[in-house]
Amino acid sequence: MDILILGIDGYIGWPLAKYLRELGHNVSGVDNFSRRRLSSGLFDIESIEDRQKEFPIEKCYIEELKHIDADVVIHLAEQPSASWSMSKYGSITTQRHNVLGTLNLLWLLKDNPTHLIKLGTMGEYGTPDCDIPEGFIESGEMKGMMFPRKPGSFYHLSKVFDSMNVEFACRMWGLDSTDIMQGVVFGVGGRLDYDEHFGTVLNRFCIQAINGDLLTVYGDGGQTRGYLPIEDSIECLTLAIDNPADGYRVFNQFAKTYSVNELADIVINCAKDLGIYAHKTNINNPRIEEEEHYYNPKHDKLAELGYNPTWDIKYKVLNLLKFVSKYKKNIRTSLPKTNWK
Amino acid sequence: MDILILGIDGYIGWPLAKYLRELGHNVSGVDNFSRRRLSSGLFDIESIEDRQKEFPIEKCYIEELKHIDADVVIHLAEQPSASWSMSKYGSITTQRHNVLGTLNLLWLLKDNPTHLIKLGTMGEYGTPDCDIPEGFIESGEMKGMMFPRKPGSFYHLSKVFDSMNVEFACRMWGLDSTDIMQGVVFGVGGRLDYDEHFGTVLNRFCIQAINGDLLTVYGDGGQTRGYLPIEDSIECLTLAIDNPADGYRVFNQFAKTYSVNELADIVINCAKDLGIYAHKTNINNPRIEEEEHYYNPKHDKLAELGYNPTWDIKYKVLNLLKFVSKYKKNIRTSLPKTNWK
Repeated sequence: MDILILGIDGYIGWPLAKYLRELGHNVSGVDNFSRRRLSSGLFDIESIEDRQKEFPIEKCYIEELKHIDADVVIHLAEQPSASWSMSKYGSITTQRHNVLGTLNLLWLLKDNPTHLIKLGTMGEYGTPDCDIPEGFIESGEMKGMMFPRKPGSFYHLSKVFDSMNVEFACRMWGLDSTDIMQGVVFGVGGRLDYDEHFGTVLNRFCIQAINGDLLTVYGDGGQTRGYLPIEDSIECLTLAIDNPADGYRVFNQFAKTYSVNELADIVINCAKDLGIYAHKTNINNPRIEEEEHYYNPKHDKLAELGYNPTWDIKYKVLNLLKFVSKYKKNIRTSLPKTNWK
Repeated sequence: MDILILGIDGYIGWPLAKYLRELGHNVSGVDNFSRRRLSSGLFDIESIEDRQKEFPIEKCYIEELKHIDADVVIHLAEQPSASWSMSKYGSITTQRHNVLGTLNLLWLLKDNPTHLIKLGTMGEYGTPDCDIPEGFIESGEMKGMMFPRKPGSFYHLSKVFDSMNVEFACRMWGLDSTDIMQGVVFGVGGRLDYDEHFGTVLNRFCIQAINGDLLTVYGDGGQTRGYLPIEDSIECLTLAIDNPADGYRVFNQFAKTYSVNELADIVINCAKDLGIYAHKTNINNPRIEEEEHYYNPKHDKLAELGYNPTWDIKYKVLNLLKFVSKYKKNIRTSLPKTNWK
């Protein structure tokens, strides 16, 4: 298949491109390469020119994309940071890029209908005091309506807006889209960011442990989310490619839920196996979020398509720690500066 | 009170400004005056310069507003047309102006907290097959969560996005906002538009009747919405000013629901009293919407504050027909050109 990856230069985009090429697909991409400016990452990555030798990659903001010609479009090209979105400039830039970019994409797909696989986030739901279904209310008089979203940052809001624009375009124009509410991804991807804005919590804990820093738990650490390793994210995206949507559908994509405290303890235990004695510290939470809460999201639909995570979290974390230790000299950590207030 | 009206040059903004001044408030305004370009209206309105002699009015897009200093901000400054938003250019322009403009406003209010009264629309809810509460789910395990929105155009989507950004800002920063889900307004305002984009249905029917045109009912005409005359819209906004919000609250603002067919029949009957024999015609619906549906939105909260509509619809329509007949020579009608597909 001809597969177009928007955001091909990113954390997930780059290994996904290589994986899909190995499966025999014809892969091309689009990226504005902005992450290279915004975050430095643990290790050096190939130059833009070198990556462009491997795949045809157009340098472009998706707001300015003029044409799409592919069998599947995988949309990973959004500003992905909650904390980066919490300044005035960050919020406006995030909502402009994400919302207007996706809107431009929908108009291109209207002219040239193609299965759109869009990466959303489990954070669109927030942490409601009830079970979270896969996208839609499952019973009662509101059955079939979108489950109410309660996002926790201007970034997460932009992702909800995108989901709603995509649902509308599917409803009005008959487009087909898989909308993926993805949990927090960890592991070594096309890059490995660990700064406050672009690093996710488990990756950041591993880097803090290797660097001899305290693992910074925000607040009480009871914040619970769904997690999955990057290999699983890629596998699930492949399942969505192989089983295209008919209309608008939503997958909740994660393997297992953990609290921040549980993750810190897992990293501390794994580090000990490597002879490293790490400790956690509870810092003032820069975010406004619940630190102890009910959390029970469904995630059945990808399992029905064959997703069956069997890995052991300790094994994954141990491997990540070993990888990070090779780049220890590159690590430059700092405390979070952005505050939700 | 010092009251700032964003969109002061518009259909509701202008009579609202004059009404609040009569009540003794100190009124100022902001407008980009774009409606003067986009729609011609039934009658000539005062020049910008003349209106600026009556009130201090800053010519500005709200995306570019730099400072707010008032006791209340009334936000009417959004692109308000569903059909205008259904082209590529229209959708992107609408979502950019409305979403990023309101976002800029929220950051200004963060620095300078002020009761924000924002005009939303009943169209944010769509036409679900169940009762519509005032903003929030009222019972069951999802109690207190935002009632799911299912808007029917890129414009209506932008209004939902604004509502969500405002709710978030209230939740995070402790802002106070009244979010008004307003029904369809009719009557003579600061201008009277009747074109496909900026004319609302009852105003348009009156103008068609006076002009001797067939009243164009979209599709089967069973589409049912909440309606209120412009005097009531202004009265309700005044009730919101006098009873400020504590946090984020939602009012459903309309007097009564009517189907499009009912409105056409009312106009036809009233026209007959003036010796005018009008007829309706069912044209192909340019919109994608349900033409027969359940519709039962609550609207108790403004009633609790004292809103008690006592007018008779026939009396209102008769007066509107008489007003329109004075400008009959100005009328230039045409069929809708925008199609949702």
